[in-house]
Amino acid sequence: MREPLDAYIASRCRRVDAALDRFLPKARVKPVTIHKAMRYSLFAGGKRLRPVLCLAAAEACGGREENALPLACAVECIHTYSLIHDDLPCMDDDDFRRGRPTSHKVFGEGIAVLAGDALLTAAFEMAARAKPSRRYAGADMVRELAVRSGSLFLVGGQVADLEGEGRRATRAQLRWIHERKTSALLAGAIRLGAMSANATPAALRALGRFGANLGMAFQVIDDILDATKTSAELGKTAGKDAKAGKATYPSVFGMKRAEAEARRFTAGAVRALRPFGTRGARLRELADHLLNRQK
Amino acid sequence: MREPLDAYIASRCRRVDAALDRFLPKARVKPVTIHKAMRYSLFAGGKRLRPVLCLAAAEACGGREENALPLACAVECIHTYSLIHDDLPCMDDDDFRRGRPTSHKVFGEGIAVLAGDALLTAAFEMAARAKPSRRYAGADMVRELAVRSGSLFLVGGQVADLEGEGRRATRAQLRWIHERKTSALLAGAIRLGAMSANATPAALRALGRFGANLGMAFQVIDDILDATKTSAELGKTAGKDAKAGKATYPSVFGMKRAEAEARRFTAGAVRALRPFGTRGARLRELADHLLNRQK
Repeated sequence: MREPLDAYIASRCRRVDAALDRFLPKARVKPVTIHKAMRYSLFAGGKRLRPVLCLAAAEACGGREENALPLACAVECIHTYSLIHDDLPCMDDDDFRRGRPTSHKVFGEGIAVLAGDALLTAAFEMAARAKPSRRYAGADMVRELAVRSGSLFLVGGQVADLEGEGRRATRAQLRWIHERKTSALLAGAIRLGAMSANATPAALRALGRFGANLGMAFQVIDDILDATKTSAELGKTAGKDAKAGKATYPSVFGMKRAEAEARRFTAGAVRALRPFGTRGARLRELADHLLNRQK
Repeated sequence: MREPLDAYIASRCRRVDAALDRFLPKARVKPVTIHKAMRYSLFAGGKRLRPVLCLAAAEACGGREENALPLACAVECIHTYSLIHDDLPCMDDDDFRRGRPTSHKVFGEGIAVLAGDALLTAAFEMAARAKPSRRYAGADMVRELAVRSGSLFLVGGQVADLEGEGRRATRAQLRWIHERKTSALLAGAIRLGAMSANATPAALRALGRFGANLGMAFQVIDDILDATKTSAELGKTAGKDAKAGKATYPSVFGMKRAEAEARRFTAGAVRALRPFGTRGARLRELADHLLNRQK
């Protein structure tokens, strides 16, 4: 009998947390400040969406979860570093994240920059520990992670986002940003899980499509929630996109069309899973879960 | 007949510059700002000390220079990112570097943070392209780079440096900082060159010792030059360590003893090269060159 989704997510989160705790230097290791700051943001109650998807993708390809674990942790470190840097006063200037003061509010800006740098670096150390599979060398996995986190994707999306503040974006421009800022790394998490499981090239492509669509759905829903929920409900500052003059799916497409786009991307994700049959059940469940989330 | 040192350095710098230009997205690639910012700092007339040492170490181990090239470029990207972030107002707050305005003065703080992030990420993409040697997988090289750039070394040294401003440091503390802030990555550059050349474990250890000593000599001399030269002579703000209340070798050990320490570290570096005989000649020459530099 299959584990219920809630229990599945909770157990995978615990496994990821335990692995992150093992991989990172303890908070007492010198210089204490940096290790405290890295852990403060990493263990701040994140949803661990990307690592759970990474593990589920490995499972869908018939791989062992433990081989995907260093990659799952690496992606979570990248995600966390990007949040720390995005929250800086010179970027989105945000004081709260996941219901707690942001890194620079607690440790100061200098340490927040360095904590992000250290987590980004630690991500590659973790990725380089992943066991190679028959088709994919360790260096292939590192390259996958680096490309999706770099100037053409994750960082590039944040640049476009920063430069777009206060300007009108077209639908195409907004989609371009969301593909880079959110979808690329989320799809990367899923592809990395598949690579650890020695996925065939066809399976890897299908899962890449699944991840790209899911990532878009996820970000569109994030935009919608930011516009419709309170800070208390979200555990982070609500309405900040509008305040920063940022283009979002509701502001550019209208709320109704934005909701339709979220459903369309989710349908695209589910379609990409077809070749996996029942093996894709867990990933399908996770996609539904994301579409229906309230925070 | 061996190439004179100046010609050797100049030709290797050109080779490294050409490879960096090839590895990085062109300045016209979207988002244009980030690629301009990455290139602005990377092609700002740096000495390319670390990549040249990386190539020379590969040569000393009988390897092909071209196999070391992606690693040499990776180390230079890490070095450049660390300068961009160190220069930020929330860190050392420096307006000039290599005789030009620093990244955040030209592009703004947000883009400077992101340019650093993108270069750090690009470094791992480059390292992951390095051809594995018989003893060392690509992932081994990535891990070497990640550990030396992370919270226990490069970033850790910067944290201790930042926290130490305005406080009295002991000799042991100062040495601890310099070992992490400078020596670790410089030694890493040399070890990576050796790994690309399939160095024996003993040769790798010897070159690690060479690099650690050379890195310390290099940083002590940097401290001395900062205290004794003008900004025009250095091409960067002189006397800034004293102004920031930073501990330096001259301020903690006294100038005479600092000079003696620089010679002691250089001698240690040269000693570590003994097993290489004439094969170590170029590395020995580079070490002498660094000890006698005036900027």
